[in-house]
Amino acid sequence: MLEAGYDKEHALYPVNPKVDEIRGLKCYPSILDCPDPVDHIICQIPAPGVPELVDQAIEKGVKSIHFFTAGFSETGDEDLTVIENKFVAKGRAAGIRMIGPNCMGLYVPGVGLAFMGGFSTEPGNTFLLSQSGANAGDIIGTLSGRGVRFSKAVSYGNGADLRAHDFLDYAASDPQTEVVTAYIEGVRDGRAFFDALRRCAAVKPTILLKGGVTDAGARAANSHTGSLAGSVDVFEALARQTGAIRATKISELSDLVIASTTELRHVRGRGVVLIAGGGGFSVLSSDQLALQGLEVPPMSDGVVDELREFIPVAGTSVRNPIDANLGRHSGDGDTTKRLYRLVAGSPGIDMVFTTVGGWGGWAGAPDGPGRDSTLEEQIAHAEDSARSLSELQIEVGVPIVAIRRERGDVPLKVARAFDQAAYNHGVAVYSSLEKAASAVSRLFEWRAQRDGLPELFSPQA
Amino acid sequence: MLEAGYDKEHALYPVNPKVDEIRGLKCYPSILDCPDPVDHIICQIPAPGVPELVDQAIEKGVKSIHFFTAGFSETGDEDLTVIENKFVAKGRAAGIRMIGPNCMGLYVPGVGLAFMGGFSTEPGNTFLLSQSGANAGDIIGTLSGRGVRFSKAVSYGNGADLRAHDFLDYAASDPQTEVVTAYIEGVRDGRAFFDALRRCAAVKPTILLKGGVTDAGARAANSHTGSLAGSVDVFEALARQTGAIRATKISELSDLVIASTTELRHVRGRGVVLIAGGGGFSVLSSDQLALQGLEVPPMSDGVVDELREFIPVAGTSVRNPIDANLGRHSGDGDTTKRLYRLVAGSPGIDMVFTTVGGWGGWAGAPDGPGRDSTLEEQIAHAEDSARSLSELQIEVGVPIVAIRRERGDVPLKVARAFDQAAYNHGVAVYSSLEKAASAVSRLFEWRAQRDGLPELFSPQA
Repeated sequence: MLEAGYDKEHALYPVNPKVDEIRGLKCYPSILDCPDPVDHIICQIPAPGVPELVDQAIEKGVKSIHFFTAGFSETGDEDLTVIENKFVAKGRAAGIRMIGPNCMGLYVPGVGLAFMGGFSTEPGNTFLLSQSGANAGDIIGTLSGRGVRFSKAVSYGNGADLRAHDFLDYAASDPQTEVVTAYIEGVRDGRAFFDALRRCAAVKPTILLKGGVTDAGARAANSHTGSLAGSVDVFEALARQTGAIRATKISELSDLVIASTTELRHVRGRGVVLIAGGGGFSVLSSDQLALQGLEVPPMSDGVVDELREFIPVAGTSVRNPIDANLGRHSGDGDTTKRLYRLVAGSPGIDMVFTTVGGWGGWAGAPDGPGRDSTLEEQIAHAEDSARSLSELQIEVGVPIVAIRRERGDVPLKVARAFDQAAYNHGVAVYSSLEKAASAVSRLFEWRAQRDGLPELFSPQA
Repeated sequence: MLEAGYDKEHALYPVNPKVDEIRGLKCYPSILDCPDPVDHIICQIPAPGVPELVDQAIEKGVKSIHFFTAGFSETGDEDLTVIENKFVAKGRAAGIRMIGPNCMGLYVPGVGLAFMGGFSTEPGNTFLLSQSGANAGDIIGTLSGRGVRFSKAVSYGNGADLRAHDFLDYAASDPQTEVVTAYIEGVRDGRAFFDALRRCAAVKPTILLKGGVTDAGARAANSHTGSLAGSVDVFEALARQTGAIRATKISELSDLVIASTTELRHVRGRGVVLIAGGGGFSVLSSDQLALQGLEVPPMSDGVVDELREFIPVAGTSVRNPIDANLGRHSGDGDTTKRLYRLVAGSPGIDMVFTTVGGWGGWAGAPDGPGRDSTLEEQIAHAEDSARSLSELQIEVGVPIVAIRRERGDVPLKVARAFDQAAYNHGVAVYSSLEKAASAVSRLFEWRAQRDGLPELFSPQA
């Protein structure tokens, strides 16, 4: 469906023999009746009508078809599989490329094409390839909420014509795409997939989520897209050999996209300074960081002495983790800058982890919105807070990682305003310390396994 | 502080030499001036005044003191440690039992005593022991939001007199306590702790979260409560030998409390039937269940045939996971009951996992609140939905586990209303399928390691 107006270049022709008009647009009885050339068909007619539609598409000179229509090879029925094979072969012979059947098709914000309501119309740098339409919706929703925007996304279902390897080759060479994500249930042509994945991962961060890595998952995948199983080990080895990275769930895929598209991707080493409040929180956080292979080096004596010049002794901690007790309302930007600059400059520190509250408040953030503030004011405050944090990131010269503690009753729009503004300014935000630590740890693992491949994550100058 | 009125039995005497009145209560210059006997002192005077206060407490015949006051042995200062040792020894010799110093003290909802604002005044069955006041607050907040209520909670800081083993012995014998949770950073008297833990875990589910299991965490713990390190392995072995269960973070501790205080604790075996929507979600969920050692057995042919009598073929799945496409608005309670009864009765099924939406809607739930509904109506709807699910749990005779998918913009109060109502009616609710699967898996592990100990989780009749 077109979300942005209908000009000649992006014209939309509804086709249905039973009505004359759909949402104010003239409706044609068949594609052969369309007055202009047709580039692309979105086919959602019942399965029995598909072969005739393909014949008409050939006659009309159409370039591509997306079959939303299901009821072919994915049913496991032999006759239906034969029908699918036939119309696909016919279309290919005539030079038509096909997506599906049994899929949601294309999301291309740059031309106003989307397959679910509510998708952003703003184009971005992330490509998604998904064998599941629902998972594509989940991934797009999750990432969009965090500020990520898409170059293109494609849900390709049965993959009767165009398959994973075709889309990977496209993504690798697409100038709008900077990072590639994929949800795969099964691969029909293993060698072609491996080669395309290697070509793609060599030039762009490529993150794969494989469904059906257990017997139970494979059974579910088989009845979903007719895909066969592959074990965890096989897929892990595939990722290692190609330089791609494997995600084990949608939230992890999302966390890895954030890590590979913010300043965090340039992080030099494993040393973390954590700025947070609460002794018990600091203890458990230090454990989590260490268990993920990160380091929490004590501040040098020189830094400790300097910190003590403006941080009182009682109820604070300045060794690392840092509990400076600046509060949300320190109101003193210089003190905050001094704190961040000092701890980020201590030997062995490569990144700053800082906790943020529900609306995005962090130690040293501008004063929070008052109790009686409007939603718009709260959103503006959250965006201000995110911008200040990104300025601090530039100031200190190492990546800042924002860790959200409980959102509580803060409206989703306010929390998202902070996350998206932070992301747009290159600051990574995570929903828990554990997730942040895990993403950073996977980032290092990924870099290490890319030995011999081109550098995608060069350290900061 | 007293939250419920001041009667003779629960009288509160503010003590401060500088003012005559605090919040409408007469204020006394010293405890010796209180007109009545004093049972318990909450001491928040500066550290130098503490020895004199203990002398006065002895004179007054006080039974117990909670020292909120910090600035003693936890600083690492030898002189301050000597002072702490002295006043503690003096108090003990006079028969006074002491909590702290450097801690938040007691939360006893049954008598209206709490150490943070917003704690529920409703008493419950869960006991919490915590060496960190902030973590105690986090644990109480997290669990309360899910419907759990506390018998007592104690933050005991330096543990100069009463220590972990004393509180564990208390919890084991306290008739109001049915489940015991603890956050521990370090143990001063290992043997006594081990023995008390074994006694407690033998009779009640006992869940331990240990802070400082890595070098980095131990360094943080040392500057927090002066505790020494213990490795992950040592603590894991301790849990195994005593029949306790180790949690690795606050959210996991919370998940384990839910598992051990709802119908889920009686689950017979590892067979799960998942009722959810979306092929890709089903595939990834099946993988997660299998990776946690749970089983997703296909429905028997007989059950499949019966399901097909009322579930259409197109766009549904009836093998397991089940996608019955009943929608939120099935409005037909009998169909839902039939579905749940059939799948729960298929061979090898021991529990039903079902997804719930933001406000708590699940496949077959009563119709959701309309767009214009008030917060009160939304809360009432969420509670109705939870009650229906608990009735279904009784109907099918195996535990139902509710998996929350994204809360989105549903107000926290509405989401919590569902969670708390479900919990109060014995239904376990988790924030993700992975967390639910992990909690169930840990429950089986826990049961297995209790070989030779009394049965706490007898299977359902």
